Amino acid sequence: MSYRTDTVAILGLGLIGGSLARALRASGFSRRFLGYGYREPSLRRGVELGVIDAFTLDLDEVIEQADILVLCAPTLVAADLLRQILERVRGRADSPIITDAASVKGNLLAAARQSWAGEMPPQLVLAHPIAGSERSGVDASDPELFRDHRVILTPEEGNDPAAVELVRAMWASTGAEVVSMSVADHDAVLAATSHLPHVLAYALVDALAQSDTSADIFRFAAGGFRDFTRIASSDPVMWRDIAIANKDALLNAIDTFSEHLAGLRTAVAAQDAERLHATFSRAKQARDEFATLLAERKS
Amino acid sequence: MSYRTDTVAILGLGLIGGSLARALRASGFSRRFLGYGYREPSLRRGVELGVIDAFTLDLDEVIEQADILVLCAPTLVAADLLRQILERVRGRADSPIITDAASVKGNLLAAARQSWAGEMPPQLVLAHPIAGSERSGVDASDPELFRDHRVILTPEEGNDPAAVELVRAMWASTGAEVVSMSVADHDAVLAATSHLPHVLAYALVDALAQSDTSADIFRFAAGGFRDFTRIASSDPVMWRDIAIANKDALLNAIDTFSEHLAGLRTAVAAQDAERLHATFSRAKQARDEFATLLAERKS
Repeated sequence: MSYRTDTVAILGLGLIGGSLARALRASGFSRRFLGYGYREPSLRRGVELGVIDAFTLDLDEVIEQADILVLCAPTLVAADLLRQILERVRGRADSPIITDAASVKGNLLAAARQSWAGEMPPQLVLAHPIAGSERSGVDASDPELFRDHRVILTPEEGNDPAAVELVRAMWASTGAEVVSMSVADHDAVLAATSHLPHVLAYALVDALAQSDTSADIFRFAAGGFRDFTRIASSDPVMWRDIAIANKDALLNAIDTFSEHLAGLRTAVAAQDAERLHATFSRAKQARDEFATLLAERKS
Repeated sequence: MSYRTDTVAILGLGLIGGSLARALRASGFSRRFLGYGYREPSLRRGVELGVIDAFTLDLDEVIEQADILVLCAPTLVAADLLRQILERVRGRADSPIITDAASVKGNLLAAARQSWAGEMPPQLVLAHPIAGSERSGVDASDPELFRDHRVILTPEEGNDPAAVELVRAMWASTGAEVVSMSVADHDAVLAATSHLPHVLAYALVDALAQSDTSADIFRFAAGGFRDFTRIASSDPVMWRDIAIANKDALLNAIDTFSEHLAGLRTAVAAQDAERLHATFSRAKQARDEFATLLAERKS
């Protein structure tokens, strides 16, 4: 099966959706960009800025007009929206390709299968661009946001290979490096490297803020603490939704971490110099290698 | 009792000790700087650089010649050295003032009381400059290292007020902001803001490095992970010694953190949106206030 790419619809027009539309217009991947969402002012602003050509508040209309639907709504909203779309396109030969940009994939896959009586919709290709900014909203959108960043595709059995190829080509045209892994691996890797660190930072800052000596604690905290806790300043609503959407993988990551922390606690309690040194040295080596990897990636 | 400040001895000549000697020479606090240590090359280099005027490998000689002894050796070495010094000066009317720059205070206080049959040596004033650098060794020493940084004095009952005042004046002359708190509060605050975050970062990186998907994990980690784990690249020997020296306060901090993490785990498992949002929001507010505090302190 082959697909048209004439009209791309962005569902949820913020930083990510706006940046994608701008990048795809610049690359010539698509000719026309349609906005859909619940908040009319953002969509109106998108038209003003030339990010999108038109918008609608009618889901049936966007399904009718678009060749590709990109769900750029927040994690839990995206799952609801996906259900609504899949119910509408089930059994239709002219369904658009459906893809997304959410931080968690497992909850979307579950929502999709639930909507289609356990089957994988062949035209649904889940994806996650690993990119962001301190800023948000369509005004902050940037056609270069994805350049040299990773986009993870998570194709599943039952997917139409031509649909997967099209979504890959779409992200490649933004300058991103597109890689593939399973939904389960994606959610486990993101839980470990992003969702767990956020939970740890939130737990630490909340614990300290509630302690008797919190005034002194924050007065005497130094640079290492600033870096370590920076992610605790992230958007609580976004991270609440991610924690809910990626429950299973996040619980696994918390449990693995807690076992390692308990091991270190035992070593501290026993003043086990050898074990403390071995663990700290292994961690330092892994962190130093990661820093090298990161430096190479940037250059 | 009044004290002379003619000769200051630095015991352990690295970044901190060398920077202190340079700062005190620049401020005119003292005329002569004497080095003592186990590693002759560092001491020889200190004389070459003009950081110290002379050195000795003989502890009796340094006690004889100096008006103030500053222990700048690593945490556990400093405790051993303190015991040796206190055994030698016990009962002597002409004892020099003794102070230090180590990261933990409780183990030094315990060592001191043990050496003096439970009594607090009046001339021992424990202190902790909250300053450092990526670089180490006397070659990296910098007379401006302490300027606008905090130095925490931890005077205890039994201390000679004139000795406390002298050590305060010494640090003030480096341009530092000198504050006081109890040994117990110091160790609790440093455990919470520095020692615990290091243990968490080491535990996280070690857990991830040992996981099956460690290659993917480090490949897909982004900026937040880099900041969060930066302190896991710290010196394993230094942090092993701090974890051993500050055992009790660190265990308390680990336990408080673990309770908060367990609370968040329960909220994740129950998909308790309200509790997750409340915790993340409280933490974000505390972290944002801390960032403001830090920005004000710098300006």
